[in-house]
Amino acid sequence: MAASAPTKTAAGRFFEDFRLGETILHATPRTLNSGDASLYSALTGARFAPQSAETFARAIGYPASPIDDLLAFHVVFGKTVSDVSLSAIANLGYADCRFLKPIYSGDTLSAVSQVIGLKENSNRQSGVVYVRSKGSNQRGETVIDYVRWVMVKKLDLKSPAPEAYVPKLPETVAVAGLGEACPPIDRAAFDQDLSGSPDWFEDYRAGERIDHVDGVTVEEAEHQTATRLYQNVARVHFNQFSEGQGRFGRRLIYGGHVISLARALSFNGLANAFHIAAINGGRHVAPLFAGDTVFAWSEVLETAALPGRDDVGALRVRTVATKNRPCADFPWREGEGFEPHVVLELDYWALAPRRP
Amino acid sequence: MAASAPTKTAAGRFFEDFRLGETILHATPRTLNSGDASLYSALTGARFAPQSAETFARAIGYPASPIDDLLAFHVVFGKTVSDVSLSAIANLGYADCRFLKPIYSGDTLSAVSQVIGLKENSNRQSGVVYVRSKGSNQRGETVIDYVRWVMVKKLDLKSPAPEAYVPKLPETVAVAGLGEACPPIDRAAFDQDLSGSPDWFEDYRAGERIDHVDGVTVEEAEHQTATRLYQNVARVHFNQFSEGQGRFGRRLIYGGHVISLARALSFNGLANAFHIAAINGGRHVAPLFAGDTVFAWSEVLETAALPGRDDVGALRVRTVATKNRPCADFPWREGEGFEPHVVLELDYWALAPRRP
Amino acid sequence: MAASAPTKTAAGRFFEDFRLGETILHATPRTLNSGDASLYSALTGARFAPQSAETFARAIGYPASPIDDLLAFHVVFGKTVSDVSLSAIANLGYADCRFLKPIYSGDTLSAVSQVIGLKENSNRQSGVVYVRSKGSNQRGETVIDYVRWVMVKKLDLKSPAPEAYVPKLPETVAVAGLGEACPPIDRAAFDQDLSGSPDWFEDYRAGERIDHVDGVTVEEAEHQTATRLYQNVARVHFNQFSEGQGRFGRRLIYGGHVISLARALSFNGLANAFHIAAINGGRHVAPLFAGDTVFAWSEVLETAALPGRDDVGALRVRTVATKNRPCADFPWREGEGFEPHVVLELDYWALAPRRP
Repeated sequence: MAASAPTKTAAGRFFEDFRLGETILHATPRTLNSGDASLYSALTGARFAPQSAETFARAIGYPASPIDDLLAFHVVFGKTVSDVSLSAIANLGYADCRFLKPIYSGDTLSAVSQVIGLKENSNRQSGVVYVRSKGSNQRGETVIDYVRWVMVKKLDLKSPAPEAYVPKLPETVAVAGLGEACPPIDRAAFDQDLSGSPDWFEDYRAGERIDHVDGVTVEEAEHQTATRLYQNVARVHFNQFSEGQGRFGRRLIYGGHVISLARALSFNGLANAFHIAAINGGRHVAPLFAGDTVFAWSEVLETAALPGRDDVGALRVRTVATKNRPCADFPWREGEGFEPHVVLELDYWALAPRRP
Repeated sequence: MAASAPTKTAAGRFFEDFRLGETILHATPRTLNSGDASLYSALTGARFAPQSAETFARAIGYPASPIDDLLAFHVVFGKTVSDVSLSAIANLGYADCRFLKPIYSGDTLSAVSQVIGLKENSNRQSGVVYVRSKGSNQRGETVIDYVRWVMVKKLDLKSPAPEAYVPKLPETVAVAGLGEACPPIDRAAFDQDLSGSPDWFEDYRAGERIDHVDGVTVEEAEHQTATRLYQNVARVHFNQFSEGQGRFGRRLIYGGHVISLARALSFNGLANAFHIAAINGGRHVAPLFAGDTVFAWSEVLETAALPGRDDVGALRVRTVATKNRPCADFPWREGEGFEPHVVLELDYWALAPRRP
Repeated sequence: MAASAPTKTAAGRFFEDFRLGETILHATPRTLNSGDASLYSALTGARFAPQSAETFARAIGYPASPIDDLLAFHVVFGKTVSDVSLSAIANLGYADCRFLKPIYSGDTLSAVSQVIGLKENSNRQSGVVYVRSKGSNQRGETVIDYVRWVMVKKLDLKSPAPEAYVPKLPETVAVAGLGEACPPIDRAAFDQDLSGSPDWFEDYRAGERIDHVDGVTVEEAEHQTATRLYQNVARVHFNQFSEGQGRFGRRLIYGGHVISLARALSFNGLANAFHIAAINGGRHVAPLFAGDTVFAWSEVLETAALPGRDDVGALRVRTVATKNRPCADFPWREGEGFEPHVVLELDYWALAPRRP
């Protein structure tokens, strides 16, 4: 007998497959180790001091060098792809992303999502799915918690529309909730010759803009390798045979790779903002392709002391990334939309040490 | 004095340099660690649960997350290249490949080969060399044992033909010999939400075909990096200057990379077939080049209980990989040969947990 | 308020910013681990036995597998780039580079440089800066010490020329200072089947030339990933948008990547010269670009016993690397300059075991 067995192959979910409130457990758990950290750094250019050096991390109060926040985020995100966005049309946004525990080499991450919103599009051919995803470590502690929403196709166009429910999401993560993943920092031990910047939390002010100057060109092998490192199997990133016949004619670079490149570029100006405590929101404004060069600039939107902590303060930063356009003049919005070279707008809270 | 010293440079062996029965010790031993595992996963997309997560591996009975079977195979294979196939015309096939001990981060692999067959070609310009290669760990235990045969050029065309000897090789590895590298598995602890598939050993049946759906495009930097990870120095993979003048005009991708990509794609449909116990045979039917997109499908050829074990069963699987051609209609043989897009035919035994 | 804050962004130093005798502490310290070693090997092809296998390293006398000398060199070099050569016109040369302590997985390297020479060019638009850089481990021990000199632009062309001072540099590192990073080697345990060559120190003689035969083609993704692994942020390696408008129209490959490729190729002929004890001098004669194929050959310039040691001897080797030109006829100088395909001339001391 030689029948096909389509049921053994996961095709990804379509819009009609999601139920409000349902919980989805994601495969595959993943142990992160120093090899992942090396590879992440080599593929993105990440080089913040605590993540780069055990000595620096221990000196300021970590028990060991923490895994880069975005590496952990991408690994958690990657797990959700098979179940949530394998056949997604577009990844529309992120919100309320909080980093809740530090992650160290040897920790194993797994992920679970809950469907918290559904809204069919007026064309009845697709809909928007909102999921809250949680990444946990091997002790069952939630380490990352975030919401994203994606546009997903319907397979059966005649399937009935679910009752529309759009969750209320915070515009920003509240200051009171920041810093759970950051141990008490010995700011006197925060050596600024080693960290790469002379600026303390107090040296930044709301409204300040920083051009991160450098640009980095992305190759197909780099974004594919990075995206596989996260076990993210979204088809648009890997399959030139099918994407060559698609809307762009090219493989699309995982938006998270753009976030990591922009964050790495931001070292030049924000080297002491060593920890991402939360992501308030993020939007991939335009696609990035291999051969494009990414630039970035940031604006400090807000500075905030953390209740009960005098070691670190929080900088609310908007980082804008562009392709093939330097950012000395801070390109951003244009009319209702964005300046044509903008690819990413990311609004996040970073922690920086307070002046000792 | 400025004489050249050709004797210090290994030129690789020619057909007339092999003697039936001789033993060849290969350089260089290689310690595998978690960094190799990360890189292997990032370059190939491998993501089977026990190899991905320490927690999953320990839960089901491994003392630690095992090194991916194919990573270990490629490392052993890589060592043999300098001595066996540096100047080979073609890698003709594999047989009787058995995985005999699990390999963990920190283990050091070394390799030794024995010449078990020789047959000069009728054109007297080349011949086929059969070698049995064994990979050992730092305790001297054989971890991998396999036969391959390659076509090797003669340098001295007048050298006499050796007495032809073609070894008898088993068509398949006997079921009784399977599973030595797999510890007793606690199948009740095999969490299928985490492993990525709801199918147990009993859910597969002989004759069943599975399209693995996805395709992955290969870049030069990816296959070169992977092949160097294995310390495989076969010239055809790395040197565009010489290959540009050769028969294909391009660098040829290491066949083992194709095997790894096909195996990684097969996760979609065979996610619980977590361990390769043996490779019955493999043939690289056509070359793969950078820019090509690899697809794969599998047929379950046979299912077998393992004598004395009720934890796992063996699936004999034939995986066929193609280039630039989706596999929904299961392309394979055509007349005497293969459908023109087929690049790989691999016949192997994988273990999957039995229904608890 | 939305003012720009240029002072938060490091622009790199210009010629007039350097002061003779000043000390520069470099960011960011970096912990090297087995993941870095795996990636280094996969990107460059490095495969000398002690660095490849824990078992081999321990057998001959190391407490553990040492980190490849050049990986450590590149990491130390990488740290100096932001402060010394971010806007350099050219990296002119290296001298007096000594490897002083072995480096193991888990060690953290940091770097400091001293300005030891300054000479404005006659065009008054740039000048040459000489720095002595030291890499230290987490115990504060100097592990690498070297001099390099770079041509750096002036920003303010009217800034006065400093008093010219060109340091005296040794033509070669003295034999008496070699070997500090090499523990006593048990040469009887140096297994030449495993190391990949039957040649002892005594088998090499001054004047001997070795063609390393193989060639390796470099991809953009490979050199970018390697250079980021070293946290080297020199702009010319990463930014096609700006380099496309520059003098070459292309990204320039980090010269250190060329050194690593040449060293890896030299395994074929120098496999037992397992440790670089010192680099006497190095010059990047011509730029290398992605798509080029690197070849290499070496001449043994000198052989030297080490005072007080009978375990290893020192080979002074000149390795010449070319692009797109095999080295069977040992291409090198031509008239006053170099044969047009030559890209690198590297003069170094390597240690090899003495015949037991």
